[in-house]
Amino acid sequence: MLRARGGWQALRCCASLPRARRAARLRVREALEAREPAGEVKVQGWVRSVRSQKEVLFLHINDGSSLESLQVVADPSLENRDLTFGSAVEVQGELVKSPHKMQDMELKAEAIRVVGPCDTWLFPLKMKERHPLEYVRQFPHLRCRNNTLSSLLRIRSEATAGIHAFFQDNGYVHIHTPIITSNDCEGAGELFQIETSNEGRESTEKSHFFNVPAFLTVSGQLHLEVMAGAFTRVFTFGPTFRAENSQSRRHLAEFYMVEAELSFTESLQDIMQVMEDLFKTVTTTVLSKCPRDVELFHKYIAPGQKDRLEQMLKTKFVTISYSEAVEILKQASQTFTFKPEWGCNLQMEHEKYLVKHCGEVPVFVINYPYDLKPFYMRDNEDGPQHTVAAVDLLVPGIGELCGGSLREERLPFLESRLQRLGLTDAYQWYLDLRKFGSVPHGGFGMGFERYLQYILGVGNIKDVIPFPRFPHSCLL
Amino acid sequence: MLRARGGWQALRCCASLPRARRAARLRVREALEAREPAGEVKVQGWVRSVRSQKEVLFLHINDGSSLESLQVVADPSLENRDLTFGSAVEVQGELVKSPHKMQDMELKAEAIRVVGPCDTWLFPLKMKERHPLEYVRQFPHLRCRNNTLSSLLRIRSEATAGIHAFFQDNGYVHIHTPIITSNDCEGAGELFQIETSNEGRESTEKSHFFNVPAFLTVSGQLHLEVMAGAFTRVFTFGPTFRAENSQSRRHLAEFYMVEAELSFTESLQDIMQVMEDLFKTVTTTVLSKCPRDVELFHKYIAPGQKDRLEQMLKTKFVTISYSEAVEILKQASQTFTFKPEWGCNLQMEHEKYLVKHCGEVPVFVINYPYDLKPFYMRDNEDGPQHTVAAVDLLVPGIGELCGGSLREERLPFLESRLQRLGLTDAYQWYLDLRKFGSVPHGGFGMGFERYLQYILGVGNIKDVIPFPRFPHSCLL
Repeated sequence: MLRARGGWQALRCCASLPRARRAARLRVREALEAREPAGEVKVQGWVRSVRSQKEVLFLHINDGSSLESLQVVADPSLENRDLTFGSAVEVQGELVKSPHKMQDMELKAEAIRVVGPCDTWLFPLKMKERHPLEYVRQFPHLRCRNNTLSSLLRIRSEATAGIHAFFQDNGYVHIHTPIITSNDCEGAGELFQIETSNEGRESTEKSHFFNVPAFLTVSGQLHLEVMAGAFTRVFTFGPTFRAENSQSRRHLAEFYMVEAELSFTESLQDIMQVMEDLFKTVTTTVLSKCPRDVELFHKYIAPGQKDRLEQMLKTKFVTISYSEAVEILKQASQTFTFKPEWGCNLQMEHEKYLVKHCGEVPVFVINYPYDLKPFYMRDNEDGPQHTVAAVDLLVPGIGELCGGSLREERLPFLESRLQRLGLTDAYQWYLDLRKFGSVPHGGFGMGFERYLQYILGVGNIKDVIPFPRFPHSCLL
Repeated sequence: MLRARGGWQALRCCASLPRARRAARLRVREALEAREPAGEVKVQGWVRSVRSQKEVLFLHINDGSSLESLQVVADPSLENRDLTFGSAVEVQGELVKSPHKMQDMELKAEAIRVVGPCDTWLFPLKMKERHPLEYVRQFPHLRCRNNTLSSLLRIRSEATAGIHAFFQDNGYVHIHTPIITSNDCEGAGELFQIETSNEGRESTEKSHFFNVPAFLTVSGQLHLEVMAGAFTRVFTFGPTFRAENSQSRRHLAEFYMVEAELSFTESLQDIMQVMEDLFKTVTTTVLSKCPRDVELFHKYIAPGQKDRLEQMLKTKFVTISYSEAVEILKQASQTFTFKPEWGCNLQMEHEKYLVKHCGEVPVFVINYPYDLKPFYMRDNEDGPQHTVAAVDLLVPGIGELCGGSLREERLPFLESRLQRLGLTDAYQWYLDLRKFGSVPHGGFGMGFERYLQYILGVGNIKDVIPFPRFPHSCLL
C-alpha cells in the first residue's frame, strides 16, 4: 500500500522546474480543501500529533494555513525518533480521499523527512493539551504554535484586511499618521517620551534629536484633521500608545486604533452610522472568512457569544444621550461605587449597567458635558446643561469600544477654548486649519484589540495582540 | 439659464431622508465620471480657481477624490467676496454635459454657499501657482491641499492597499509586529529609547515603565521569524525608526517598511521572486488605479520616468553576486571615492555604477561577505571567500530598495555566532526557535518611501510621507 518511489532525490529533480515545483507543493489548507485525489504532492508543516499503531502510523500536520490539520497515513517503517510533537516535517505522498468520516482528504506518505526536530521535554506546549491562555502567554515566542493563538492571528489578519477593504470600498484615503509627534499637550502624564539612546541623562532641550521634546502618539486624530482639509474621507489604522500604569484586562501600553475623519459633516448621526457600518461589515467579513477559527473561540472561550453576535448584527444600535444615561443610572436599583451625577464621567460600572439596561446590545451615548471633553469637540451651545457633540460606543462585556465627535470648526470658539487652556501657541497650526477653508467635520476611533476581544469573547486584551506591551513587561 | 430653485432651505428638507440625501450629494470624482445629466445635485469641495467674467462666473472645485477639479458655471450674481481660492463651498445645481472640450461634465450652479472662507493673503498656497516641493514642505498642515501632495497621498493610499492585497492574495498572514521592543543589541547607536515623560532624569533601570530599557523597532524581522515557526507565510507593514543623524534625501527617522518571511524555503531565489512579484504587482496596481495622479509626477517631477517604469515592468530583474559586483567595479574606468575591495560594503557610488552597468534596471546583488552581515543570515559555508545568503535589491536613482536573506536555522551555527558576539543571553528566545521544530526560512524588507520615490521619481524622501520626521524636525 505504501510505496517509496524515488524519495527526495526524485523530487529534487522535478523541483528544478518552477511550475512542477509549485504543483508539487501544497499548503495544508489546500490539501484539506482538495476534493479529488491530487496525485503526488509534498506537504510541509509542524507535527500536531503522532499515533503509532502496529499496522499504520498516523500523523497530523499543520502549517498555520488553517485550524485543521492534515492527516498523514504512513507505514510504521517510516517512523523515526525525531518524528515528535512540534517537529517540522516534509511529507511526500499521494493526496487521496479519506475513508474516515472526520476528514475529506488524507495524505498517504511515501517519504517523511524531519526538517527540524523538537525537544518535547523542553518544549512548553504539550500534545493534545488545551493550555490556558494565561499559560501560553508566558511564551510569546512560541505561543503562536498553540491552536487558540494561531486562530487568533488568522482572525486578526482577516479583520485587518476587512478594515482596509471597508474604507477603500467607501472612498476613504488611507493616511499614515505619524508615530512620533511633538504634540504633548493632551494628557501629558500618560505619554511615552523619546530620546536617542545615547542622549543620556545630561541631555538638554537643545540636544534633543528633533530639537523639541518628542512623544509617541496617543491618537492620529489631529493629523487626520489636517487631511480632512483636503480630502472628504480619510482613515488611519496604526499603533497608538499610553504610558498608563494600569494592569487592567482592557489596557495595553501599545495598541492599535482605527480612526476615520469625515469632512462636510454636520451631524453626529453620520459619524455614528459609519461606526456601526464599519463594525457590522468587518464582523460579517471575519465570520465568513474564518468560520472555524471563530468557532474555536465561541466554543471553548466564550460559549454563547456566537448567538449574541449574530443577534447584534441584525439589531440597530441603540442611541441615548448622556443626560438620559445619567437619569437611567440615577433611577437604577443597583448601588454604584461612583454615584451617578450629571457632569461626572461614566465609570465602567455605569457603562455595564447602561448596556444591560438597553438589552445587552451596543449603545451610543451622545452629547457629553462640555467640561468633561477635550478642546476640539464641537460646542452644542445648548446651555444651561452645556454639552459637546461627542459620542462613545459602549458594547457588552467591554465598555467603551469607540469614541468620536464633531470637531469645533469655528475659529472664534476654538480660539477662546485654546486661550483658556493656555495652548494657543502650541496649536497655531490647528487654528490655521480653521482659517483657510474650514469645514464642518467629525470622526471617531475604534480600539482594534477591544474589537477583537468583543467579537471573540476574550477576557484579557493581552491575548488578542501578537506581542503585548504593558507595565513591567516588554518581552522580545 | 441659471435659476434659484428654493436654495438651501429646500435642500435641507429633502436631506431629512437619508437616501435622498446620499443621492443629492456627489463627490467630485463621481461628478466628473458621470457621463449623463444627473439632475439636481450638491457638490462640496475647496475652490481651486475663480474666474469672473461679465456674463458668467467660473469656479473649479476639488474635494481630494481626484486630481481633476469640477467646473462650476454660475450667474455672476452668485459671486460674493468670500468666494476665493482656498475657500470651502457647497454648490447646488444641475450636473450637465459640458460644451467645452476640456471636460465631459460641468455643474450649473443654482446656489453657492461658502462654508469656510479663506484668507488668501495669509494662505501660503496661491492660485494657479506650481509651488516647488521644498516650498510646500514648510507647511505640513496645509500642503495636502497642493495638487502634487494630494496626488502623492492618493497614490500612497493605493500602494498601501495594493501591498495588503498582494500578500493576502498569496496566502500570507498579516502580523502587527511590535513598535516598542526590548531588543537593543543590533546597531545600538541608532536606536530611539523610550521613557515615560515623568520618569525624568533621575530614573534608574528599575524604574523603567517596562522594567527594562525599551526602544523603537528598527525592523519587524525577528518577530516575524517567531511567526514563521507557526505559519508558512507572514508579512508586516508598519513604521520603523532610525535615530541616524543624517540629512540625506533617502533617510527619515520614521519610515514604513514592508517585511515578509517565508518558511520551508531553502533558496534565496524564492525570496527574490517574491520581491520582484511584489514590486511589479503593486506598481501595476498603482498605475492602473491612479493614472492621472502618477501622470502628474511623470510629467512635471520626473520626465521620462513613465517609459523607464513601463520598460522595467516588462524586464526580468538582473542578478549578480557580490563577488561579481566587486569585479565589475574593479574593472570600471570610473574612479570611486571608496576603492572597491572584496570584503567592503558597497557604497552609494558603487550601487549607482552597478545599476548603470546592468542597463538601468533593478539589480539583485547576492551572497555578501559573512563578516559584513548580521548574525542571523545563513552561512553559505563556501570559504575561503566566506559568504552568507543575503540579497540587496538596487534600483536606478535610489540604490538599495530591499534587503533580504535566508536566516540561519541551524542551532549550532547560530549559537556559535551569538556566543562570539556575547549575545547568547539576550537571544535565548531566538535560539529557542531553532530548538523546537526549526525550518529553513528567509525573508526581506522593502522601504515603502523609497519605493514611492522610485516609481514616481521624487528626489527627496520627505515629499513621499505625510508627516516627515528627521533630525531637528518633528513638526505637528
